[in-house]
Amino acid sequence: MPRITAVYRVAGTARAIEARAKAIAVEQSVEMPVAAIEDKVVLADIVGCVEGIEEIGEGSFRVRVGLAVATTGPEPGQLINMLFGNTSIHDDVTLEDAILPPEVAAAFGGPNHGLAGLRARSGAVTRAMTCSALKPQGLAPEGLATLAGRMAEGGIDFIKDDHGLADQAYSPYPRRVVAVAAAVRAVGGTTRYLPSLSGHLESMRAQVRIACDEGLDGVLVTPMIAGLSTFHALTREFPEVAFMVHPAMAGAASIAPPFLLGTLFRLLGADATVFPNYGGRFGYSPETCRDLAQAARRPWPGVKPCVPVPAGGMTLNRVDEILDFYGNDTMLLIGGNLLAAGDRLAAETAAFTRRVASHAEGRKG
Amino acid sequence: MPRITAVYRVAGTARAIEARAKAIAVEQSVEMPVAAIEDKVVLADIVGCVEGIEEIGEGSFRVRVGLAVATTGPEPGQLINMLFGNTSIHDDVTLEDAILPPEVAAAFGGPNHGLAGLRARSGAVTRAMTCSALKPQGLAPEGLATLAGRMAEGGIDFIKDDHGLADQAYSPYPRRVVAVAAAVRAVGGTTRYLPSLSGHLESMRAQVRIACDEGLDGVLVTPMIAGLSTFHALTREFPEVAFMVHPAMAGAASIAPPFLLGTLFRLLGADATVFPNYGGRFGYSPETCRDLAQAARRPWPGVKPCVPVPAGGMTLNRVDEILDFYGNDTMLLIGGNLLAAGDRLAAETAAFTRRVASHAEGRKG
Repeated sequence: MPRITAVYRVAGTARAIEARAKAIAVEQSVEMPVAAIEDKVVLADIVGCVEGIEEIGEGSFRVRVGLAVATTGPEPGQLINMLFGNTSIHDDVTLEDAILPPEVAAAFGGPNHGLAGLRARSGAVTRAMTCSALKPQGLAPEGLATLAGRMAEGGIDFIKDDHGLADQAYSPYPRRVVAVAAAVRAVGGTTRYLPSLSGHLESMRAQVRIACDEGLDGVLVTPMIAGLSTFHALTREFPEVAFMVHPAMAGAASIAPPFLLGTLFRLLGADATVFPNYGGRFGYSPETCRDLAQAARRPWPGVKPCVPVPAGGMTLNRVDEILDFYGNDTMLLIGGNLLAAGDRLAAETAAFTRRVASHAEGRKG
Repeated sequence: MPRITAVYRVAGTARAIEARAKAIAVEQSVEMPVAAIEDKVVLADIVGCVEGIEEIGEGSFRVRVGLAVATTGPEPGQLINMLFGNTSIHDDVTLEDAILPPEVAAAFGGPNHGLAGLRARSGAVTRAMTCSALKPQGLAPEGLATLAGRMAEGGIDFIKDDHGLADQAYSPYPRRVVAVAAAVRAVGGTTRYLPSLSGHLESMRAQVRIACDEGLDGVLVTPMIAGLSTFHALTREFPEVAFMVHPAMAGAASIAPPFLLGTLFRLLGADATVFPNYGGRFGYSPETCRDLAQAARRPWPGVKPCVPVPAGGMTLNRVDEILDFYGNDTMLLIGGNLLAAGDRLAAETAAFTRRVASHAEGRKG
C-alpha cells in the first residue's frame, strides 16, 4: 500500500525523540493507543510508521513518518489533515516537507497552465513576468479601475486585486470586476487582470463566472482561507482559468513555506504562487525563498511548474538583484511601491517593465 | 463607522513598538504606504488605527488595532483575513483576541442550538454531557458500527467520528453513516451520532443530507480545514443540525486558542467546540483551557453559549478533576482511553457516564 512520507522537524532530546516520533506517527494516523487495535489491516497499513530519525542540530530532529495514501481520500482537506491536522497544535513540531508518491500527483493534477501557460498569455518569452496589485481597499470600483488603467498603460503583465478586496459594500465584486476589466481592456495591451475571490465554493464559482464574462482568464485565491478543498475544486472546474494564490493565513511557524506555498499549492493547481520575498516587509530568509521557488518549479512528473511570485515590500531598484536571485522563470510583484508614484503610476509601471525586460536582454548579451 | 478591535501580542522593544504597531495596522487594512493614499474616506475610515499599546512583560506588548467592520464583508473568510491574513506570516505577532461590535455578532449569528439545545437533546438537565470518538480510521463501516453500538449501550450522550474519518475507500461516508446510525438506533437510547464532514461546501452539504436522512441531527466539522466560510454557510443552511467543531490545523502558535476555538468558532455557529485539555497529549495550559471555555460560554448578547469539549488523551480517573475545573456546562470527550477497553467497551462507557452523573449529584448534595 503506497505511503506518503511526511517530514517533520521536531524539537526534543536524543533520549526522548524515538518515543516522540512514534507518538506523532500515531497522532497523524489512528489517533488512539495502538495496543487497543485488533484489526490486522489497520495495524499493517493504516498506523503511521516512523521511517527515519535524524539529528539536524542541537535539540532538533528530522522525523520521517509514512502515512498511507489511502487515508487521504484522495481529498485536499483530508490530505492536510493527515499530514498535520492534530500535530499542528503541538508547538514542538513543524511540517517541513512531504514526499508524495505518483498516485498523489495524479489524483490532484497540479497547475492547468503553470509557467509555460502564463508566459504564453503575457508574451514574455524568456524575460521574467511582471505584476502589480490594486489597492487600497476602500476605494470605489472607479478609483481602482483608474489605477488599473495606468498600470496597463505601463505595460504590466498581470494586475491582481489586493487580497483584501473581497465583496465589500464600498466595492462589490461584480461592479469592481466590470470596471477594472473595462479599464484594462481600453488600453488595448496584453495586461491580464486577476480579481480576488472570497467566500465558499458557490460564491467563488459565481465570481469566476463574472470574471469570465468580462473576458478575464485568471483569478486570485487565498487557499488557507478558502480551504484547500474549495481551491482545488475550482482549479478542476475551471481548467481554462489561471489561478494565482496568495499566502494570507499561511502562518509563520508551523508549516515550512516551501512545502505549503510551493509544493502543496502547486499540487492543488496553483499556476503562480505569491510569497513574501526576503528583505521586504516579512521575515522569510533568502534560503526559504530559494527553497520555495525551487519547490514551485522543480521537475515533477505529471505536474506543471508553478511560477514563483516574490512580493511584499518590493521596490524598483531591487529588480536586478531579485532577478539575479530567482532567474527569469519568475513573476515580479511590486504593489505599494508603484502605487506610491501617484499620478506618475503609468510611467513608474513602464519603468518597472522596462527594467525587467532589459535585465533579460543583459543576461542574453 | 464601527470598528473591530483586534488585539495582538507583539514581541519587540519599547523603542520600536509604536512603529511596529502602526505597521500592523497598515498591513491589516490598506497594505500600502499611507502617504500614497489620497482618498479621504479611505484615510478616515479604512486605514487601521492603533488604539492602544501596553507592555505586558519583558519585550512583549499588547497592541490594539481598530479595523473597520465594513472591510470584513461581512464574510467569515474575509473577517479572518482582516484580523490576521498577512500578519499571520510575521512570527513576532500572535492574534490574541478581537472585540467584536454588535453588528458582527448580528451578521454571523452564532450557534443555532448551543448549550441549551445540546442539553435538551441529550436529556442532561444539569450534569455535564459525555462524548466519545469512533476510531481508528481504517476500520470498515461495520467495525465502527459495532464500536458505536457498544458506546450507545453504555449510555453515552454523543459519539463523534474521529476527525480522520473522511470519505476513504475503506469506509465511504455514506456506508459508514448508515451503518453507525443503525447501530446506535438499535440500542434505543438517546445517544446522538455526529459524523465527520469533509471536502468543500457541496460535498459537505451532501454529507449533511445523508446524515439527516438517517435521522441524525448533528455533525462534526473542522473549520480550519473546511474554511470558515464553508463552515458558516453550513450552519446557516442547516439550522436544525447541531455543529460540533474540531481544532485540527488550528495551529500551535499564531492565534490564541480561546479566541479561535472559543469566540470565533462560536460566532460562526459552533454548538460545541472540541479542544485539547491540559494534562493530555497536547500542550495547552490550564489557563488557556479556562480562557477558552470562558470564551465559548460567556454572556454575549444575541449569541448562544457554545459547549466547551475538553479532549485529547483524557481518562476516566480524571473525570472529577476535569468537571471541578470546568463545571457542568461542559461536554467531556474520552476517546482512545475508552476504546482501549476492547470487549469491555460498553461497560467502560457506562462507568464513564455514571461517573459524570454522580459528580453532578455529589455537587448538588
